[in-house]
Amino acid sequence: MRRGRVELARFESRVLRGNAAGDPHERLVPVYLPPGYDAEPAHRFPVVFVLAGFTGRGRMLLNDQPWSPALDDRMDALIAAGSPELILVMPDCFTRFGGSQYVDSAATGRYETHLVDELVPWVDERWRTLAARDHRGIAGKSSGGFGALRLGMRHANLFGALACHSGDMLFEYCYQPDFPKACSVLQEAGGIGRFLEAFVAKPQKGKDDFSTLNIVGMAACYSPEAGAELGVGLPFDLATGLPRADVWERWLAFDPLRLLPAHADALGSLRLLHLDCGTRDEFHLHHGARAFTAELRRLAIAHTYEEYADGHMNVSYRYDKSLPALARALSE
Amino acid sequence: MRRGRVELARFESRVLRGNAAGDPHERLVPVYLPPGYDAEPAHRFPVVFVLAGFTGRGRMLLNDQPWSPALDDRMDALIAAGSPELILVMPDCFTRFGGSQYVDSAATGRYETHLVDELVPWVDERWRTLAARDHRGIAGKSSGGFGALRLGMRHANLFGALACHSGDMLFEYCYQPDFPKACSVLQEAGGIGRFLEAFVAKPQKGKDDFSTLNIVGMAACYSPEAGAELGVGLPFDLATGLPRADVWERWLAFDPLRLLPAHADALGSLRLLHLDCGTRDEFHLHHGARAFTAELRRLAIAHTYEEYADGHMNVSYRYDKSLPALARALSE
Amino acid sequence: MRRGRVELARFESRVLRGNAAGDPHERLVPVYLPPGYDAEPAHRFPVVFVLAGFTGRGRMLLNDQPWSPALDDRMDALIAAGSPELILVMPDCFTRFGGSQYVDSAATGRYETHLVDELVPWVDERWRTLAARDHRGIAGKSSGGFGALRLGMRHANLFGALACHSGDMLFEYCYQPDFPKACSVLQEAGGIGRFLEAFVAKPQKGKDDFSTLNIVGMAACYSPEAGAELGVGLPFDLATGLPRADVWERWLAFDPLRLLPAHADALGSLRLLHLDCGTRDEFHLHHGARAFTAELRRLAIAHTYEEYADGHMNVSYRYDKSLPALARALSE
Amino acid sequence: MRRGRVELARFESRVLRGNAAGDPHERLVPVYLPPGYDAEPAHRFPVVFVLAGFTGRGRMLLNDQPWSPALDDRMDALIAAGSPELILVMPDCFTRFGGSQYVDSAATGRYETHLVDELVPWVDERWRTLAARDHRGIAGKSSGGFGALRLGMRHANLFGALACHSGDMLFEYCYQPDFPKACSVLQEAGGIGRFLEAFVAKPQKGKDDFSTLNIVGMAACYSPEAGAELGVGLPFDLATGLPRADVWERWLAFDPLRLLPAHADALGSLRLLHLDCGTRDEFHLHHGARAFTAELRRLAIAHTYEEYADGHMNVSYRYDKSLPALARALSE
Repeated sequence: MRRGRVELARFESRVLRGNAAGDPHERLVPVYLPPGYDAEPAHRFPVVFVLAGFTGRGRMLLNDQPWSPALDDRMDALIAAGSPELILVMPDCFTRFGGSQYVDSAATGRYETHLVDELVPWVDERWRTLAARDHRGIAGKSSGGFGALRLGMRHANLFGALACHSGDMLFEYCYQPDFPKACSVLQEAGGIGRFLEAFVAKPQKGKDDFSTLNIVGMAACYSPEAGAELGVGLPFDLATGLPRADVWERWLAFDPLRLLPAHADALGSLRLLHLDCGTRDEFHLHHGARAFTAELRRLAIAHTYEEYADGHMNVSYRYDKSLPALARALSE
Repeated sequence: MRRGRVELARFESRVLRGNAAGDPHERLVPVYLPPGYDAEPAHRFPVVFVLAGFTGRGRMLLNDQPWSPALDDRMDALIAAGSPELILVMPDCFTRFGGSQYVDSAATGRYETHLVDELVPWVDERWRTLAARDHRGIAGKSSGGFGALRLGMRHANLFGALACHSGDMLFEYCYQPDFPKACSVLQEAGGIGRFLEAFVAKPQKGKDDFSTLNIVGMAACYSPEAGAELGVGLPFDLATGLPRADVWERWLAFDPLRLLPAHADALGSLRLLHLDCGTRDEFHLHHGARAFTAELRRLAIAHTYEEYADGHMNVSYRYDKSLPALARALSE
Repeated sequence: MRRGRVELARFESRVLRGNAAGDPHERLVPVYLPPGYDAEPAHRFPVVFVLAGFTGRGRMLLNDQPWSPALDDRMDALIAAGSPELILVMPDCFTRFGGSQYVDSAATGRYETHLVDELVPWVDERWRTLAARDHRGIAGKSSGGFGALRLGMRHANLFGALACHSGDMLFEYCYQPDFPKACSVLQEAGGIGRFLEAFVAKPQKGKDDFSTLNIVGMAACYSPEAGAELGVGLPFDLATGLPRADVWERWLAFDPLRLLPAHADALGSLRLLHLDCGTRDEFHLHHGARAFTAELRRLAIAHTYEEYADGHMNVSYRYDKSLPALARALSE
Repeated sequence: MRRGRVELARFESRVLRGNAAGDPHERLVPVYLPPGYDAEPAHRFPVVFVLAGFTGRGRMLLNDQPWSPALDDRMDALIAAGSPELILVMPDCFTRFGGSQYVDSAATGRYETHLVDELVPWVDERWRTLAARDHRGIAGKSSGGFGALRLGMRHANLFGALACHSGDMLFEYCYQPDFPKACSVLQEAGGIGRFLEAFVAKPQKGKDDFSTLNIVGMAACYSPEAGAELGVGLPFDLATGLPRADVWERWLAFDPLRLLPAHADALGSLRLLHLDCGTRDEFHLHHGARAFTAELRRLAIAHTYEEYADGHMNVSYRYDKSLPALARALSE
């Protein structure tokens, strides 16, 4: 089998420099170059930005795992099986809160801007991409699927195709159920800062630890709040334990389901709009995916949607479907 | 040890006759009579109505269990240890939906009316109670605690003391997190009726089965809806999976936290107002209990509140605290 | 529907008096008398001893439960549906270790003797039984199924039919897997006595608590050991944590699978020999049941065997099959 | 911070060529070279072989993870903090059964021979190691800890120091409890081959899947059997479900606890013998570790032993202790 290769490129971000969370502004960005890249030195290739899920970053997509190929090996195999060749870019938008949701936030940093204004042109300059909207795609899973869907809606001038695997949406179902537990954990920890310290120090993190990190992380992204601890506005009051409706409204403004109506034209202009979800998704994202695609149908926006009889984790096998479809859509 | 005895009395309810759920209007009501009841035939005793939790009814309070005494044995021991004597009444307000929350509902039946207008006078007629508000109490655990608290607030003319153990409140935290899962289960089952059939037929019911029954049961109690399947208005749309805000508002009208302000006088008039909760309550009820008692403190309403380092199940040991306190308050 | 009734009889045991575990020698034994018992005062009825599982005793078989009838209500319904009438006796062989396995043990008491030499004649004297081996059966579930099977094998002169639901056997699979965990728990607790104290005091007992109690209880029954703490010989050394092969051999001597060859004649003489098991039994008892019935087939011993696609808990619905079959076998 | 680098070397094994499991005989072996390796081109360094656990291989030790550094980054940090420099070799002994336990087996391949006869000399030839027993160590976690301990015992001429983190031992406790479940799973799957196929195909593998793979994997390593399916002798009979004592004896011959007496001299000759375990190890390995070290004490064999209040997973933080200790022991 012909093999591509990965360059692990260092990117120094101006946008992220001095970010509030104190995370590095230098990042390592793996870029997969397909077999033809070196073989045909004059050729240009479509490119897809692949966004990691929460607690992840680009390099993790290349991790060695026993029964699931790393993204580069997977792409090699897809190309060997007939997929058009693609460049894959794997950004690092990790933060001390576990992720960035690929949005701009005063508590984390300007990750949307970083991706859109910095990484996109840098990639086009540095590698032989087909540097045009119709040959550039974005994809991801879970929080990466959310990022792909939201950025695709908001930057239709940059991305001509997108794939959203089990992406965060219908926030009432995917986030709200964890609020009471997260509130208890944070109260016991003595606040966000102490929780994060204990979380990092704990070798074996449990289910409640991750649920709490998830809520803290989303709050850092969706509801930064000047004056709050670490600048993070929680969706509940740590003193009383009660829900905060105003903060919740700020979260909902990021829900792809709520963003859809205002971005129908952008979605309708895509060369490929692909969504999927597992029907036993532990974050109940199948409800969101069904509502989102029902609305797409109602608005007659072309898309593909697939459901799988599984859950939220270990679904990278679904790239076997989306990556060749993206490659075809972006190669035309 | 001197022992009381239990009469298992049959009550034929006019209020429940022809109830929408098709549940029996004849019920067996265990009544515990303390040791002195037979020994002092001229004496009258205070009475406490003890309300079972969801999926329970009065008789279950008398079940034989390996390391936790049945309610009659427990009361015998408390009296032996110095508690004033009490009559205990254990109503049966079970329904095909798993319970009644002790409210009137077009989908289940008029259980609040049954309890207040039928059982209270019947008990006073049939047994030698001190038939007055200041000698009549109400208590319960979980849904029974909710019932005790709500009925105590709404019928301060009937009940002079109440104890609420881990009672349902702050519905955003105790019910809402189960909506997406219940929605999935009901969709897969093909509606409420089929879900209930399968539930009853299944010897080994799982966690999701009970979560779903709980949501269906609460909907039957809080949001009956003419024309809906079995008359039950679900808090989500089974076709789209989306939350229904109007139904949710109807639920919130039953939340003790929301009822409190309008019933402050009633609560303030009680001879005993006792609440407790476990700090690891699986339904997150400690957040509600803290918010409720914080409001009591703000309004300077006398009460007692205790927290235990445990969860929601198997907390009948807490009656060791509340029953003697009720007995003392209702004996004065 | 015609209804039978339950007498809760008090039995004072000479055999259990002064038992090593300090458990009461007076026991309450519920006896179910079928509808015809009072209606036909000259008639005699077959009798079945129904043995509760570990942590249970006879009275628990009558507990009120939301979706599963108590044993008396179940028998009423079976008789209404055509089953011959039966007297049911529900012994109390509970101990401080959680049960007795219905065996004689120096650490618990002589429960086999109690049942066989005391209860059987007492029942025949006190109620209108058909007081003969061919009209007397024994049945039970889990540890009660083990008891029924073992006592049926050893006392074929007393019992003419038996039903064993998910009974303990193939001890390598049903007990041994819990040894390492039980060893850890007992080491941390500081011995058997302290473990039992903490167990009783803990309102919400967890999975490991029950697994440990189970191993301690079996050790008390199968391997009493003079000089050991509470007279209980554990199958591992608490100081080193290592398995004790000699103790294990004593356990295996109680395994119905090992008892079978020496009791083939007794088993072959039964009017009914019924076994069943769930194929997802959490104690892996389906392996034992299959091995036991394979051996029965090899020896051409008549029996019935059924498998159900469920687990170990809440299987009392299976009495709907075994009780009428026992009634028929014992009525002929 | 000064950084080392990793060479991902390809090794073509003669020993593994044509192995029975059909696994590749060409392997990628990451070799970590410390910062001084390039800086001091005449210098030679001690070397440690780090063995991955079950379902792992060397490359996984370098995986990017959110809150736990990859092995190369970890070693860089340890060196920066004062540890002597070390070369780390990360063999790939993965098989279709999930691993090799680093033993020779007719069902998997000759992995012990591969490591000892092929990798050790190849490393010494290809990199600037201190090519002597007193400067060569071996370490690992879980199955890798087992491998390190067993190979260290058997090849004291090759390895002068070893560290065993939560290594497999006391097989009665770490493997046997999973036999009944694995037997059920394999029976339902229809044998080993079908189980493995289904396992690989299943994106989301559950707890029982992994337990079963583990038992199959151990059987492939410890009890290969000519004529059995895939050459694997299971420790139970798939037809009857019963345990096979003869196979079990073959397993026990690999238990480090049983190997210890015959290898006391080898263990006593080590410059460093380090073991540790979590006190809540899910495979109960703390019992084994305590028994092993108790025996070491009895035989007056020098060693270090630490217990941690955690479980079996995510314990790579313990390399922070063992790697500098190995580095010091092997640098003298």
